[in-house]
Amino acid sequence: MLGPGDDAALVGAPDGRVVVSTDLLLEGRHFRRDWSGGYDVGRKAAAQNLADVAAMGATPTAIVVGLGVPADLPLSWLDELTDGFADECATVGASVAGGDVTRCDLVVIGVTAMGDLAGRAPVLRSGARPGQVVAVAGRLGYAAAGWALLEAGVPVETPLLAEAVAGHRRPSPPYAMGPLAAELGASAMLDVSDGLLQDLGHVAEAGGVGVELDPREFAVAEPVAAAAKELGADPLEWVLTGGEDHALAAVFPADVRLPPEWQVVGRVVEGEGVMVYGREIGRRGWDHFR
Amino acid sequence: MLGPGDDAALVGAPDGRVVVSTDLLLEGRHFRRDWSGGYDVGRKAAAQNLADVAAMGATPTAIVVGLGVPADLPLSWLDELTDGFADECATVGASVAGGDVTRCDLVVIGVTAMGDLAGRAPVLRSGARPGQVVAVAGRLGYAAAGWALLEAGVPVETPLLAEAVAGHRRPSPPYAMGPLAAELGASAMLDVSDGLLQDLGHVAEAGGVGVELDPREFAVAEPVAAAAKELGADPLEWVLTGGEDHALAAVFPADVRLPPEWQVVGRVVEGEGVMVYGREIGRRGWDHFR
Repeated sequence: MLGPGDDAALVGAPDGRVVVSTDLLLEGRHFRRDWSGGYDVGRKAAAQNLADVAAMGATPTAIVVGLGVPADLPLSWLDELTDGFADECATVGASVAGGDVTRCDLVVIGVTAMGDLAGRAPVLRSGARPGQVVAVAGRLGYAAAGWALLEAGVPVETPLLAEAVAGHRRPSPPYAMGPLAAELGASAMLDVSDGLLQDLGHVAEAGGVGVELDPREFAVAEPVAAAAKELGADPLEWVLTGGEDHALAAVFPADVRLPPEWQVVGRVVEGEGVMVYGREIGRRGWDHFR
Repeated sequence: MLGPGDDAALVGAPDGRVVVSTDLLLEGRHFRRDWSGGYDVGRKAAAQNLADVAAMGATPTAIVVGLGVPADLPLSWLDELTDGFADECATVGASVAGGDVTRCDLVVIGVTAMGDLAGRAPVLRSGARPGQVVAVAGRLGYAAAGWALLEAGVPVETPLLAEAVAGHRRPSPPYAMGPLAAELGASAMLDVSDGLLQDLGHVAEAGGVGVELDPREFAVAEPVAAAAKELGADPLEWVLTGGEDHALAAVFPADVRLPPEWQVVGRVVEGEGVMVYGREIGRRGWDHFR
């Protein structure tokens, strides 16, 4: 409604409430300038917050951005970054409403995303009940596979490997699936930012329930499988523990009829924690489970 | 409406729009841990964004915070910081709705503040018209005086000097004066974050007008005068060019009746730029003006 240039921006909030998510992305920790260009970093920074908004069942409306910028940062990199913000927002009908720039020794990106629930209740992490089903929409394992390829310094010479690397540089969250899940009666939802097992652990804990996954139900995407073959790695580890793809994981009533974007991967049970093949993963995680 | 702990927060936006402001504060640039404790930094970080919201004529409702935290930061400092956020918000009836914490080599604080206009139009920087009056609410020069005392390493032994130093550590923006100015018909408003001359320069430019100040109309506050005397400095320089006090500067119709919190300091004229004693300050600033 009112963009950059004044003390503050003005953003529509049609239903009288606004969903708000904020994150900091730091050079060296969340991205590397030698691995990702400004455009991809901008898309990724926006995507990660827009996905948080979608995971509440809301449609993203706008972001505001705080930037810390080193004196020697090329202006072209900054232009690409802001193009990345704008383009990622455009994929979901949102806009860049404002921002703030300050000098800093490293690139710091603070993104705050807002969204509208259109009168619906927000879908929290805490609503899972025994007997319900767990489903996932969006990519799993791409970002982890791409990161592993980059770290190994493997030449990326096939389209499938390139797709995995692109998945690391720029996630593709299934934004529209958030509001749709809310419409379909999702009782709990979050975006997969730390890895499916860890994030479903939050759903289990918040709901006072257990979650049972059967990885045999998972379709491992071709780029992830190809990267695993290239590196002699276990693709299922990336699918279950890789973060940063910003898929959505949600819990639905057992009789829900889901569109094909949602893949049922498990169920909610009495108890606690996340079980895979009927065994609890536990605190030591996937590495110690196999 | 829904606080920290989920993917996103939910904040009320009663009038169907939300005013949003975001800023990054960086250790070493915006604060020093040896000069300011966590509590003061938290209050200052919140204040600077809440003041931006008030400067649109809105009442602040909530903040969300992104934190970058070094591994060796004492937990007590972080507790004090979050207490500072909460207490500053409480002074204006707002709340801390959510946040995000990540590791970083320096303390990085990204604050996003939101506010409600209660049906009013936002007061932009651009509405000043010739013949209107310029007024200021809140402190001017405290933060600059306090910073100068700290930098000079002068022993702070009198209540007045201590008040100036406290003004550097923790601003006291006149939040309620923002919505009140909007009710009183303010045509332009901003918060004084870079110094009165520079910020009124933004008002002049955005409105296509000139601003004429007569510093003889300024009441220099006692703590500012005391610090100037202690350091042999010009208190008017701090009043006119000191930032970070987050006073509000607004333009009103000439016949406005202002409450005593607002001090008329000048008028809007045809032309451009900011004039002091009838002479234009110009690009070289106050140092070259005297």
